[in-house]
Amino acid sequence: MTELGGVGVTPRTGHGIARWHDRTIDLGEPPAPETVDPGDELAAFERARDAARAALERELDRASERVGEAEAEIFDAHIQFLDDPQITDGVESAIEDGLPATHAVRETFDGFVDQFEGMDGRMAERADDLRDVRDRLLRLLVDDESATEPSQADGPDADERIVLLADRLTPSDTANLDPDRVAGIVTKAGGRTSHAAILARSLAIPAIIQVGDALETIADGDHVLVDGEDGRIVVDPDDEALAATAESGPEIREGPVETTDGKHVEVAANLGGTGELTPAVESGADGVGLFRTEFLFLDRETPPTEDEQYDAVTDVLDAFVGDRVVVRTLDIGGDKPVPYLELPEESNPFLGERGIRLSLDRHRDLFETQLRALLRAAASEHGDGLAVMVPLVSTIPELEGALEAVDDVAADLADEGIEHARPELGVMIETPAAVLCADQVAERVEFLSIGTNDLTQYVMAVDRESEALADLHDPLHPPVLRAIRRTVEAGRAEDAWVGMCGEMAGDPDLTELLVGLGLDELSMSAVTVPAVKRRIEETSTDEAEDLAERALEAETRDEVRSLL
Amino acid sequence: MTELGGVGVTPRTGHGIARWHDRTIDLGEPPAPETVDPGDELAAFERARDAARAALERELDRASERVGEAEAEIFDAHIQFLDDPQITDGVESAIEDGLPATHAVRETFDGFVDQFEGMDGRMAERADDLRDVRDRLLRLLVDDESATEPSQADGPDADERIVLLADRLTPSDTANLDPDRVAGIVTKAGGRTSHAAILARSLAIPAIIQVGDALETIADGDHVLVDGEDGRIVVDPDDEALAATAESGPEIREGPVETTDGKHVEVAANLGGTGELTPAVESGADGVGLFRTEFLFLDRETPPTEDEQYDAVTDVLDAFVGDRVVVRTLDIGGDKPVPYLELPEESNPFLGERGIRLSLDRHRDLFETQLRALLRAAASEHGDGLAVMVPLVSTIPELEGALEAVDDVAADLADEGIEHARPELGVMIETPAAVLCADQVAERVEFLSIGTNDLTQYVMAVDRESEALADLHDPLHPPVLRAIRRTVEAGRAEDAWVGMCGEMAGDPDLTELLVGLGLDELSMSAVTVPAVKRRIEETSTDEAEDLAERALEAETRDEVRSLL
Repeated sequence: MTELGGVGVTPRTGHGIARWHDRTIDLGEPPAPETVDPGDELAAFERARDAARAALERELDRASERVGEAEAEIFDAHIQFLDDPQITDGVESAIEDGLPATHAVRETFDGFVDQFEGMDGRMAERADDLRDVRDRLLRLLVDDESATEPSQADGPDADERIVLLADRLTPSDTANLDPDRVAGIVTKAGGRTSHAAILARSLAIPAIIQVGDALETIADGDHVLVDGEDGRIVVDPDDEALAATAESGPEIREGPVETTDGKHVEVAANLGGTGELTPAVESGADGVGLFRTEFLFLDRETPPTEDEQYDAVTDVLDAFVGDRVVVRTLDIGGDKPVPYLELPEESNPFLGERGIRLSLDRHRDLFETQLRALLRAAASEHGDGLAVMVPLVSTIPELEGALEAVDDVAADLADEGIEHARPELGVMIETPAAVLCADQVAERVEFLSIGTNDLTQYVMAVDRESEALADLHDPLHPPVLRAIRRTVEAGRAEDAWVGMCGEMAGDPDLTELLVGLGLDELSMSAVTVPAVKRRIEETSTDEAEDLAERALEAETRDEVRSLL
Repeated sequence: MTELGGVGVTPRTGHGIARWHDRTIDLGEPPAPETVDPGDELAAFERARDAARAALERELDRASERVGEAEAEIFDAHIQFLDDPQITDGVESAIEDGLPATHAVRETFDGFVDQFEGMDGRMAERADDLRDVRDRLLRLLVDDESATEPSQADGPDADERIVLLADRLTPSDTANLDPDRVAGIVTKAGGRTSHAAILARSLAIPAIIQVGDALETIADGDHVLVDGEDGRIVVDPDDEALAATAESGPEIREGPVETTDGKHVEVAANLGGTGELTPAVESGADGVGLFRTEFLFLDRETPPTEDEQYDAVTDVLDAFVGDRVVVRTLDIGGDKPVPYLELPEESNPFLGERGIRLSLDRHRDLFETQLRALLRAAASEHGDGLAVMVPLVSTIPELEGALEAVDDVAADLADEGIEHARPELGVMIETPAAVLCADQVAERVEFLSIGTNDLTQYVMAVDRESEALADLHDPLHPPVLRAIRRTVEAGRAEDAWVGMCGEMAGDPDLTELLVGLGLDELSMSAVTVPAVKRRIEETSTDEAEDLAERALEAETRDEVRSLL
């Protein structure tokens, strides 16, 4: 029984058989051409393609249900690569030249991978997709050599749960996982706010990142326990270890929670897809602090209608009767492409046309339709709890433009005799501009909700997806804490409540600090709700405020960490 | 005599004959194939290519001298396109199929333009370069039809000065201009901090941007006066108008300047290339506030040696005896590629590996060599005035890392018995993180210099090069002013002087506001030094502070503008 340490991203525990993900398949040198029967190899390639396509289609369906369709498009792209005539022709002519199907696939795909890698930005990212498809085919072909029927290519036997080990996981890897079969994820690198970590958390899969090269000491087949709460990996756990960390999170805590001295802090869930509603309700969340409406727009040919949006929002309101449900208006942009919206290609999409910038301009029609659905939902049976916030505000005229749009839509609905009401209105604080003018923002709305993922990105001037700069993208850097504090103070001065809906809110280790910084609400992946509720109940406001004061005067992130 | 208005970017006046830039050349339908002699057309294409190559090589040399070699690489890329075998073969086979050279060039280049436009990021930008090369060839071919010798393709007769009109100008367009022949530039769109505007200013070409569609009322051949100080374009100016705006900037003012009540504000010049040193000295600048060392690294095969850097810095010190010269250490990254440095491709280069992040990590060797040159220069005959600042600091450990590197290099030089001294040390304030922790930064250094171009970009979360979002990239947005104020206050509390070296500092209309915000130094393109000095001498500190207070409480950029 040995132990390794890392950073836990999902506060759950699980155990299973270790399996390294995506290790390059070693094909060896190709056999002499005269020993290869091109007819057999072409047939094997055909079988592998069919099996791969069938598997991808299954995964596409599963991903659509499970992660709210947002990631499902990746599988579509993979299927397109499988059917690409240039690639298929390449493989077939390599086989005709005397290569076995395995080597023909590797050679042909690697040629395209090189081409894509020579390009920029999104094209280069497609190289990862091509590698995914290549390895899927290779695994099928290698299996095919020992059995004529393609085996279940996506893991061990269905009744054996695995712990996936990887250098790092792409979002596609993660979306692909079946939580019923994957007992845990452990990676060498990665960041807490990376897309893959957020997905692991929303799937409630125990996950630990940043273990480093020590992870190499674990081999395929080892029995591994993953304690995502303490960031602990135990190899060959004994019965005692297994018993001590039974496979369950902390107890569900229904209803509002208070600190030891009676300060109420709301603990809400983030929703990124319809599949996440039930887990959110079951987590004991006090409401929804961030309903990402983007998933309603993805994986389809046209935007959702007003009625579709009304139904989606009222479903959530009906599931959280008496609770607050904060809906964020459409937050898309060059970094989250939606084919039918014709977004511009940008050199720096994170600094580009996104969020409210599109809603007041190029996509005003979508914004107005969404507001109509929301104002109608506010007048529905359980519409009292509805709150609406706008993303990426960086100027007061933008905010006023959004508020005027609400008034205009309300006037239109009144003219048409359609029942509607004004929801609570707020702003997502995620640009430094919004922080620096938080007083002027707070004057105009009922609440502020801090989006720490983007805020950290802009305050630190660091791409949240950058592996090389992951250390800079950490909300524990003192300037980010100061930005949070300034926002809270501005909200208080204007009687606006202040919440947080970035990943920071869902880390139980930071709960005391956030209470000390004065947040009224924390919203997070459903899976972390129970742990955060428990931490709040253990927190004394005085001690938390003292901790926050010291953190605000700290000079480095490490100093902040050591205070926690 | 009619007048149009826009935003002046260079406070100079000039007049000349209007010429629209880069309007598509209308070739009409191709003639019937039987009327075309492929041999003649192939010869014409060959002549046009030779003439284009010769012109590009001349321009490459001129650009290297004039704009500090940074932009010269563009011409290299153009020459490569001219010699690309795929393109050449395409044109030749289209000619053999019966097209005249003009139509063959258009058809072939447009095919490649479409391909590049379908790609992302930098590849898409190459489409602009391809269009440049296409149009250059087409102009030469069209001229070739009336004369066997290629004409001077780059403008009107050498003794006729032109005013260039354009929808917008790319950096390559601007680098290409000869200030002796271009009396002015007027564009419909563009931003004050766009690369093209910065170049126009450093070339001292009168320039006005953001005129809008009204510019269409001016036709090729009209006589046009460009008043870059007031943002005024006069069509068919009468003698009085020409006399009233004689072609000269304000009088050069040598020596330090004070406000009406005796507050000294230093007015320094930015240097981006060796060619800019003489204009800087002649502008009456009180020193150099931003010596961009990047140009020393561009347009060559290997990094400059320690001695080369020492020579470049001491040249500037010798030209500004007794004055301060602020050198910024190497500030490169994915947005400013340097072939031999192997920088990573990034999805959001402005949020990526840049400045100090590279200097402390991947390019520590370059950083140490640069520091050695700088510490030695500080001990040179006129080295007293040397100051050194580091770019893109976002954490205190980064700053401490830089300061330790200075100590380490000093210790090495001492061990080696090499004469050296510690220059004044400072930090460029350009991330919101540095602003929010400016107190902790100021404690550790002698000065802060605010880089408003990047600071605005990060505070507002907007790409400074984005055309669509140019309105958001404006330092007059109140949150940016608040960030400046916070930096000034932090500097004062720690006895660090605070300067500004972004484009904002060079706008004479903002001088009073900046004096009011408390800046001790303003550094700008040499061409604007005299105008800013004059404005300072007209400013009363009390009134300026009052203006600044009101601007800090303003809620919109327009409100700030109306205060000015």
